[in-house]
Amino acid sequence: MRMVDLIQKKKSGSSLNKEEIEFIVNGYTAGDIPDYQMSAFLMAIHWKGMTDEETSYLTLSMAHSGDVIDLSAIEGIKVDKHSTGGVGDKISLIVAPIAAYFGVPIAKMSGRGLGHTGGTIDKLESIPGFRVELSKEEFISAVNLHKIAIVGQSGNLAPADKKMYALRDVTATVDSIPLIASSIMSKKIASGADAIVLDVKIGSGAFMKSQEDARALAATMVNIGKNVQLNTIALITGMEQPLGREIGNAGEIRESIDVLRGQGDADLTEVAISVAAYMVMLGGKFTHIEEARAAVEKVVRSGDAIETFKSFIASQGGDPMVVDHPELLPSAAFHIDVVSQVEGYLTEIDAEQMGIAAMLLGAGRARKEDPIDYGVGITLNKKIGDTAAIGESLCTLHANREDVQSVIELVLQAFRITDHKPEAVRLIYEVII
Amino acid sequence: MRMVDLIQKKKSGSSLNKEEIEFIVNGYTAGDIPDYQMSAFLMAIHWKGMTDEETSYLTLSMAHSGDVIDLSAIEGIKVDKHSTGGVGDKISLIVAPIAAYFGVPIAKMSGRGLGHTGGTIDKLESIPGFRVELSKEEFISAVNLHKIAIVGQSGNLAPADKKMYALRDVTATVDSIPLIASSIMSKKIASGADAIVLDVKIGSGAFMKSQEDARALAATMVNIGKNVQLNTIALITGMEQPLGREIGNAGEIRESIDVLRGQGDADLTEVAISVAAYMVMLGGKFTHIEEARAAVEKVVRSGDAIETFKSFIASQGGDPMVVDHPELLPSAAFHIDVVSQVEGYLTEIDAEQMGIAAMLLGAGRARKEDPIDYGVGITLNKKIGDTAAIGESLCTLHANREDVQSVIELVLQAFRITDHKPEAVRLIYEVII
Repeated sequence: MRMVDLIQKKKSGSSLNKEEIEFIVNGYTAGDIPDYQMSAFLMAIHWKGMTDEETSYLTLSMAHSGDVIDLSAIEGIKVDKHSTGGVGDKISLIVAPIAAYFGVPIAKMSGRGLGHTGGTIDKLESIPGFRVELSKEEFISAVNLHKIAIVGQSGNLAPADKKMYALRDVTATVDSIPLIASSIMSKKIASGADAIVLDVKIGSGAFMKSQEDARALAATMVNIGKNVQLNTIALITGMEQPLGREIGNAGEIRESIDVLRGQGDADLTEVAISVAAYMVMLGGKFTHIEEARAAVEKVVRSGDAIETFKSFIASQGGDPMVVDHPELLPSAAFHIDVVSQVEGYLTEIDAEQMGIAAMLLGAGRARKEDPIDYGVGITLNKKIGDTAAIGESLCTLHANREDVQSVIELVLQAFRITDHKPEAVRLIYEVII
Repeated sequence: MRMVDLIQKKKSGSSLNKEEIEFIVNGYTAGDIPDYQMSAFLMAIHWKGMTDEETSYLTLSMAHSGDVIDLSAIEGIKVDKHSTGGVGDKISLIVAPIAAYFGVPIAKMSGRGLGHTGGTIDKLESIPGFRVELSKEEFISAVNLHKIAIVGQSGNLAPADKKMYALRDVTATVDSIPLIASSIMSKKIASGADAIVLDVKIGSGAFMKSQEDARALAATMVNIGKNVQLNTIALITGMEQPLGREIGNAGEIRESIDVLRGQGDADLTEVAISVAAYMVMLGGKFTHIEEARAAVEKVVRSGDAIETFKSFIASQGGDPMVVDHPELLPSAAFHIDVVSQVEGYLTEIDAEQMGIAAMLLGAGRARKEDPIDYGVGITLNKKIGDTAAIGESLCTLHANREDVQSVIELVLQAFRITDHKPEAVRLIYEVII
């Protein structure tokens, strides 16, 4: 088999078989196939696409290119959750304790933030004492004991994906649905869960800008799940504005606690309930989504899952007191209101720009090696559909420096205020099963 | 400027400007842009194409990536000729002395053969004593004295093209018209001629299989010529079967001498006359192609250019006696007739297969470093449209070994004999000016 012939085959629109795809992924991971052939191949995939079968072979080859976590020592149906990334997206922090409350084991590996998007692991680290690195034994025993543990990615998970992603990043081959889908699913398969709920974001703050693209990505991932016996459901949810009111690590922990207490923002609560309902259903606790949803709603209203959140924090060395006393979480020295310059209806909040603004305050990283300031961030005081008067606060910046003029300017650009009341934002577009 | 953004720009269908294309070519030649970005870019060009302007910028950047030969010390309009490659294509050997006979200076750099195609330099080296390496001074003085010199490629001509071609070869990005056109034209521009006649081959033995593709390639090259002030004319000529009757180095020299004497195969003579007529016209010797053609026909009929051929050979150290005594050229030890197994009309001769057969006899190279046996080759005794009886010779193999059974089998596969008289093969499809 020669790589050049396989590039030609894909380029001419033919499908590759299992052996051919394994040859490529294994050869590339081992360094036998050079970057320049892989990048030409990736560009050919961009144009010619991949069949569901090809995408599944690619995903499996990538998943098995390194360690595959064995979670068989954990009882029950392990359910994972993945979001394609958004701004203010603290859904994992809310749904994981809810699912665990129902007895669904959550043995989750999460990532760190980069650029305008945050990462669950960074958010958890804002809790004093919280350890995101557990030994395999600690991890499994924590899940068996508390039904929940969330750790950073460790080991050599899907190295083929890591290498391919780095190459795609510098060769303008990121935006290909089979490549995005296989990248996400290969890591999830290697992480060892039995089922997964995917939250595919759509809108200004998401990678997928159109519903059509989001649906294609979601369908591709659900199909991969079917082909590899990983029970997969995808929700397509809106990211037309930041999710909830808080952007920034400690702030998002605080807001997650509010939701778990039944005191959260309605929109954020609705998305969390939807995701959590599918998780507990996949976890085998309910047969019908309506039952699952009703049960999850009840738990959120009553605030019952807050105790699960506390024991989760404590089991990973964090201070559970932060739940009842959020003032123990890191906070910022300065709080600066960004006020409206005009009067009208808030019709747009560019989520990506808001994410970048939070990053510039120190809540995120421009480069992987940058440090994070857990206490800084942004609180949205207005959301799409609200009215704003001149001088009224649109949002509050939480900063550890006084001069944030450039961030204020960026934030003002992110808000669009007009004369017309906008349509209500859509939260859940569709569910792909 | 970042290469990844330029790949994205091309991928999205936008055109690159002069600075962007120079950045890419210079960066790639210098090694600042890695192969993996270049191959993704080339694959994007395959899909999105290039405008005439982009192709011209690319060609010029490649032409100026290394040495550009200065032929200003040669008087007159220097006319070059290039063929996209064929089997039995000895047109350069015929038209160069004809153009020189008319006083058009031919200062030509030619290549060596690889795979199924031969190279003018290899053919000339079959003449005892002929030197294909001349110093720049010898080269220029030979042209000023005899109006003709043909040497191998020397110096650092279009290194960007060399590097890009090697990359295209292993990344399945060879078959892109702007890339083929810029590759050919960049070398020609760097070779320093003032005008060029391109012979774009079409058919089973050519890279371009359809007239549409050949026309697109020809038009692209003529356009590049216009944009860079290199007067360019392209003929699209047939390569449905090998050109003329001889395949192999010394054999092609012998056949070229026959044509120059007015005793050549009608088809081969016709193509040579057409190419030569455009060369002498571009060289400023005639205003109208009809006049040029009439004059060239007369010279071929009279055999007057044979003396120019002799002085050309002598001036580069070769033995001009081979012209009157072709038996002085290398020859083979064994002559084996391949005879027809069936009766009927010859309807196809696969030129590429015949080229490979000649290569297997030793007339060509499978790899660049392989040696060549100048005396071996194939003489076609039948051409498309001829009738063949069972046992009648289709062609004669000239070999220096007795066991050529595998070559015979290959050759028999290349000949297709049917009950129906085929249409006459087309020689000149069109001329793109």
